Amino acid sequence: MHGKARTGRLLTPHAAIETPVFMPVGTVASVKGVPQDTLEELGAQIILGNTYHLYLRPGVSTVRKLGGLHGFMAWPRAILTDSGGFQVFSLNELRKVNEEGVTFRSHLDGSSHFFSPESAMEAQIGLGADIIMAFDECTEYPADQARMRASMEMTARWAARSKKYFEEHKSEVPWNAASEIPTLAAQSAARMGHPPSLDPPLSGHACQTLFGIVQGGMDRALRKESAERTVEIGFPGYAIGGLSVGEPRELTREIVESTLEHLPVDKPRYLMGVGTPEEIVEYANLGVDMMDCVLPTRAARHGLLFTSEGKVSIKQARYAQDAGPLDPNCGCRVCRRYSRAYLRHLYASNEVLAQVLNTIHNLSFYLDTMRRVRHAISLGVESRFLASLWSRPKT
Amino acid sequence: MHGKARTGRLLTPHAAIETPVFMPVGTVASVKGVPQDTLEELGAQIILGNTYHLYLRPGVSTVRKLGGLHGFMAWPRAILTDSGGFQVFSLNELRKVNEEGVTFRSHLDGSSHFFSPESAMEAQIGLGADIIMAFDECTEYPADQARMRASMEMTARWAARSKKYFEEHKSEVPWNAASEIPTLAAQSAARMGHPPSLDPPLSGHACQTLFGIVQGGMDRALRKESAERTVEIGFPGYAIGGLSVGEPRELTREIVESTLEHLPVDKPRYLMGVGTPEEIVEYANLGVDMMDCVLPTRAARHGLLFTSEGKVSIKQARYAQDAGPLDPNCGCRVCRRYSRAYLRHLYASNEVLAQVLNTIHNLSFYLDTMRRVRHAISLGVESRFLASLWSRPKT
Repeated sequence: MHGKARTGRLLTPHAAIETPVFMPVGTVASVKGVPQDTLEELGAQIILGNTYHLYLRPGVSTVRKLGGLHGFMAWPRAILTDSGGFQVFSLNELRKVNEEGVTFRSHLDGSSHFFSPESAMEAQIGLGADIIMAFDECTEYPADQARMRASMEMTARWAARSKKYFEEHKSEVPWNAASEIPTLAAQSAARMGHPPSLDPPLSGHACQTLFGIVQGGMDRALRKESAERTVEIGFPGYAIGGLSVGEPRELTREIVESTLEHLPVDKPRYLMGVGTPEEIVEYANLGVDMMDCVLPTRAARHGLLFTSEGKVSIKQARYAQDAGPLDPNCGCRVCRRYSRAYLRHLYASNEVLAQVLNTIHNLSFYLDTMRRVRHAISLGVESRFLASLWSRPKT
Repeated sequence: MHGKARTGRLLTPHAAIETPVFMPVGTVASVKGVPQDTLEELGAQIILGNTYHLYLRPGVSTVRKLGGLHGFMAWPRAILTDSGGFQVFSLNELRKVNEEGVTFRSHLDGSSHFFSPESAMEAQIGLGADIIMAFDECTEYPADQARMRASMEMTARWAARSKKYFEEHKSEVPWNAASEIPTLAAQSAARMGHPPSLDPPLSGHACQTLFGIVQGGMDRALRKESAERTVEIGFPGYAIGGLSVGEPRELTREIVESTLEHLPVDKPRYLMGVGTPEEIVEYANLGVDMMDCVLPTRAARHGLLFTSEGKVSIKQARYAQDAGPLDPNCGCRVCRRYSRAYLRHLYASNEVLAQVLNTIHNLSFYLDTMRRVRHAISLGVESRFLASLWSRPKT
């Protein structure tokens, strides 16, 4: 136990979130293959949407007209959107960056688009997530010192512009009381057969929260400077970006641990794009409050499943006649009902249900892991015990 | 109202089935994209498995070892398997048919296989469905008189061989009390957190039921002769096969109506591979008790949805900002929660959730339609009213 782990309660317009929290990724307003009621049942408190993808399809104005992401995808709990920066940098080889912003081509149809701190804020306000992110430049890895510094400094300038635009326009969020949207939201809630679980209640004065992002590449001093400059601008929460971009895991951990020292203790800290079950436990114990990662959902689609007994590659022939549950210690609806043999058959037969069930289990494993982490932290239990929740016992 | 419609209760080892019933198709032990608990929630009483597909993958011995299809796919309600005949004929251009049986090539790997009435029974006994089908030859359309007669006569001889093999081996079903399998089934039931809903209870003496199949192409006299010869062999239920093979819909109806006249009133009648929502209502009113069709599930995967207001092609741009539910008169979990705009977005974005939600709705529509048909028949209501349940009101 590092003594830095903490639990908390993050209040957002659509939900109060128990932290540390893992946030499933719903790239284009869907956690791939999983219906929203199943996500609720799994205990997902907050999910991610990707501004880049949603901006391209179905477009911000469509989402706004349908009540923002909450109304559009019929998800009454909390949502966080990234700024689009990471996708622009990772999906676009032909991007052009200057002080003003980034010109990029759509990966869907090749059309040309431009994101600036201002337009990224405009998009995220239109999407209406509870938490939105400053527009940043994700520094590539590896990068030399000059490049890391220049990139970090631009991110700092963009952070200030993001905040300025947000403060001037935050009242324009689609679910704000002044708009006509609540009617649609109410329709949607009525269709669901129950009122949205608003905790605290969504008031007419509720608005989004904008988080700043720390960059600085793999240089501890630049990370410190980035943290200080971002904190100086002032945000209600801070993210650590630009990691999990190809660097060794030990380096990720080193940068995270040193960066955390420069972030205020009384504000939520969000580590972006991390990680394995082992890592989310580790980072929660370092004092990270929020994490997201495509790993549980993406790995599920490739038949890689996380269990209390270690990783299971369900495609293997050894499971073809295995009547046991995927994870005997898991209480999810997949492990309660189906055998490894059946899951292996679905995967081998390329059945869509394979993706659905595999994703449900992996998300259940991640969300359960984080639930146990919260419980253990609140009891002051050793982090080593937490890690043993998922890693195969050493014999 | 034709006065021929009837309701009934079909007792099988795993469930008592209210008829007329629509049976969703679960080709390789999965109704594509839909978890089994959702099928239960939708009220599916009995589902289909395809012997041809399951024989090739995962193989009969694997399914048998895991407790038959019920244990393998964790489905406690009733199951029906076809004989494999239809797939052998529709998926294999290089098949060779003689009196003994059919040699065919796997569509998966090109390997050579042989199905006879005996081996098809052996496979179906190993799969352990509640209701299994005689091995028949599905006559192609169009076919000349000599071909239709020869094919019908071979089906009759194969029906007698199917019955003989079945009677000699029916005690070998995997869930029969004498085997070691109940242990696995019990494990599975325990994992599901509830005992299988056996109604009537699965007793040690329960066994499968073998249905005969009437062929005879599009010739009413041959259909009559086929029905009489099949009834003479004697089965506890009779299917009408060889329809929906490319003939005009009016011809299908004519053949069905005339064939039904030659089937015993006191035995269940199963019309194979039919049809649209309009048709399942129509045939139920003609006195058909059981139907199956890939249409609701296959159409769903192509974005074609059946609603009380007519067919909806959800891919159309007109739905891009449509905040209304898919079907305002449907109470399924899709229509209660999501907008047409969201379903359109999922389909346009090629998201797996599109297939999941579309399939759930279409199955709900079919199963609800059949539920209303049963109710209407029991009240003696006009069939025209039933048809109006799904077709767009004429204005």
